[in-house]
Amino acid sequence: MSTVHREANGLRAALSTVRSTPIADGSTLDEIFARALLGSVAEPGDGLLGRAIDAIGAIGAAEVLLDSASPAVLVDALTRAGGSIDAREAETGLARWSPRLDHGAFARSLEQAARVGAHLLLPSDAAWPVGVDELGIHAPLGLWVRGREHALGSSASISLVGARAATGYGEHVTMEASAGLVDRGFTVVSGGAYGIDGMAHRSALASDGTTVAFLAGGVDRFYPMGHETLLARIVATGAVVSELPCGAAPTKWRFLQRNRLIAAASEGTVVLEAGFRSGSLNTAGHAAALGRPLGAVPGPVTSPASAGCHRLLREYDAVCVTDAEQMAELVGGARRPGGRAADPTSDDRGTGMATSHDAVRVLDALSTRSPRELADVARRCGMTPSSVMGVLGGLEAIAQAKRHPLGWLRVRRG
Amino acid sequence: MSTVHREANGLRAALSTVRSTPIADGSTLDEIFARALLGSVAEPGDGLLGRAIDAIGAIGAAEVLLDSASPAVLVDALTRAGGSIDAREAETGLARWSPRLDHGAFARSLEQAARVGAHLLLPSDAAWPVGVDELGIHAPLGLWVRGREHALGSSASISLVGARAATGYGEHVTMEASAGLVDRGFTVVSGGAYGIDGMAHRSALASDGTTVAFLAGGVDRFYPMGHETLLARIVATGAVVSELPCGAAPTKWRFLQRNRLIAAASEGTVVLEAGFRSGSLNTAGHAAALGRPLGAVPGPVTSPASAGCHRLLREYDAVCVTDAEQMAELVGGARRPGGRAADPTSDDRGTGMATSHDAVRVLDALSTRSPRELADVARRCGMTPSSVMGVLGGLEAIAQAKRHPLGWLRVRRG
Repeated sequence: MSTVHREANGLRAALSTVRSTPIADGSTLDEIFARALLGSVAEPGDGLLGRAIDAIGAIGAAEVLLDSASPAVLVDALTRAGGSIDAREAETGLARWSPRLDHGAFARSLEQAARVGAHLLLPSDAAWPVGVDELGIHAPLGLWVRGREHALGSSASISLVGARAATGYGEHVTMEASAGLVDRGFTVVSGGAYGIDGMAHRSALASDGTTVAFLAGGVDRFYPMGHETLLARIVATGAVVSELPCGAAPTKWRFLQRNRLIAAASEGTVVLEAGFRSGSLNTAGHAAALGRPLGAVPGPVTSPASAGCHRLLREYDAVCVTDAEQMAELVGGARRPGGRAADPTSDDRGTGMATSHDAVRVLDALSTRSPRELADVARRCGMTPSSVMGVLGGLEAIAQAKRHPLGWLRVRRG
Repeated sequence: MSTVHREANGLRAALSTVRSTPIADGSTLDEIFARALLGSVAEPGDGLLGRAIDAIGAIGAAEVLLDSASPAVLVDALTRAGGSIDAREAETGLARWSPRLDHGAFARSLEQAARVGAHLLLPSDAAWPVGVDELGIHAPLGLWVRGREHALGSSASISLVGARAATGYGEHVTMEASAGLVDRGFTVVSGGAYGIDGMAHRSALASDGTTVAFLAGGVDRFYPMGHETLLARIVATGAVVSELPCGAAPTKWRFLQRNRLIAAASEGTVVLEAGFRSGSLNTAGHAAALGRPLGAVPGPVTSPASAGCHRLLREYDAVCVTDAEQMAELVGGARRPGGRAADPTSDDRGTGMATSHDAVRVLDALSTRSPRELADVARRCGMTPSSVMGVLGGLEAIAQAKRHPLGWLRVRRG
């Protein structure tokens, strides 16, 4: 019996309580254990671990770690599996993972998860947000979820993010955007922070929509503390999610890595208000790097709180979005049957050029009060009488010009 | 002696007064006369006339018009010159130009130009804004200028345009932008209208800069009337310009054609504030069609007065510009020696990602108060001690971490 299987069996009860479905068999149990364990020793986005898992699987990687194997064993296992990790890299990896191996802490973390009702979602689960797999070797090993797992797997999701230091303007725009997106059938994804994130969640909840918050620490302790009630409300109808185990504290690195999940778990990201150095630009950068649609809401150029959004428009080729309709369009239109999809024909794109050039010239030459004869109109607009006659016929048809016993009149508007 | 030369000679005195330099010879006299005359019978941007001039010259085209020649004569002349206008087109052209031929009105128009001190600038003149030649067969035949002709020929020019219905926000941004561009050596081009245009001109004047206003009617009558004083001030140090002869009234068609000149006569166009259907979007469209840099200043998405700018960012691929620096950059940087050029290195583009990923993780693992040993730091950040040591050395060098007898400390900021 392998070390992984033996330890997994020892934790079977705890592992069962952190799964939403019964554990089917021994290999599933091992996989759950291995991913939870590896997630407790590696920092989010550890590419070396991602490569090891790609080569020998999570169970294989956990096995090497548990056996306190020499790097040579890992290199050997990877080489046999066709991996490309050399001795030096293997040594580096084990040197940073091994010191964090703590069986007691790991067991307590599982107990804490069970206590708060957090479930561990795995890549093989139906509710797994497939978008995060595009992170490749930087994809999360698993996701700890409080709330409804299926809120995560929604295909129609959009991230609304922004600065903590939001203005009334930013909050207003976010409120309208989130409510409008919920109305169109979207799940609103954000980071649970103060400011824009919080407003995005609140407005979605107020519209009876589904919203998902990704945290930078364990889901057992809501951060920020001032959002404890908000996050609890999100748990009730949506989901609060983290790739970090219960007990893990949020750190700057983990915030940056959490941002990559927000970008990867949604179809597109919109930054609603952000200063020049706002952390939400990092989320935007991840969205852009993943080739996901990226939108930015402009604001007054006199407001430093919008400088980051303007920067995204200038430097990141973000799309300028001004309302929920345009945000929905950014990721491909409304998703709820019956939701209003963008109708390209509803905008006549008129810029005063809607009428033809000739029509403009003929209208210029007409008066609303003094009827003018055809030749007079032709001379005034510098066109031939026959051309003018053709245009007048068209203008008459759309009620912009009318005949009079003494010639032609322009129809007054409004 | 040709009809053109005979009539030009008859108007020699009047034509001399509308030129800023002495008329060199008979053929120059004929060219001045021909272009002024054709400009009095054709509407701006008449492509058929442009093609005729390309084929047989302005003098040739005026000759055909004056001789009241049958279309066959025009077709014959064009065919001999290798042109491609057929009989039907020639008929159409003469049918719209001939009825406007009015020798008395033409002479009065020249007298009026002389009275207000307007000069006729020709494509062969040094001060001719070469950019307008890119309009091809739609290029102006000549430009009537009041003020300093050379203000027009400046190579460093930028158009600042926008809606008449400007808000305090739009006016404020325009004021700052125009002053900043003048400081960088740019000539500010606009349309003399109320709102954004007026503010662009005023601010340029207030900064002792050069500004040029293009009008949609003759330069003898300032439009709008409420800007009579402003336009007179522009004449004193810059230029008020129109392709229409004195006495010509502004019409909607002429406003649209005037917009093409604003776009063509400047290196780039910036729309500072514009509603969804503002006429300034037409100027922007011309700039885009000419391949000139196009910028748009964003505003609150809650302000309908900025909806046109956001539309340009979304639909016309306009560049988001928020200040004079970025506008100057749009057209290639500052132009006055000593003017501040855009310095790409002055922006470190930091989004919280300025420090490396590893540095962020090591800083996360340090405390500002409790010194931590290397192994402890390594375990906390999940990196190997040797990697941490390398990063700590770097952080020490930039004073973000420091050594302590008991380990390492993070340096408090600020």
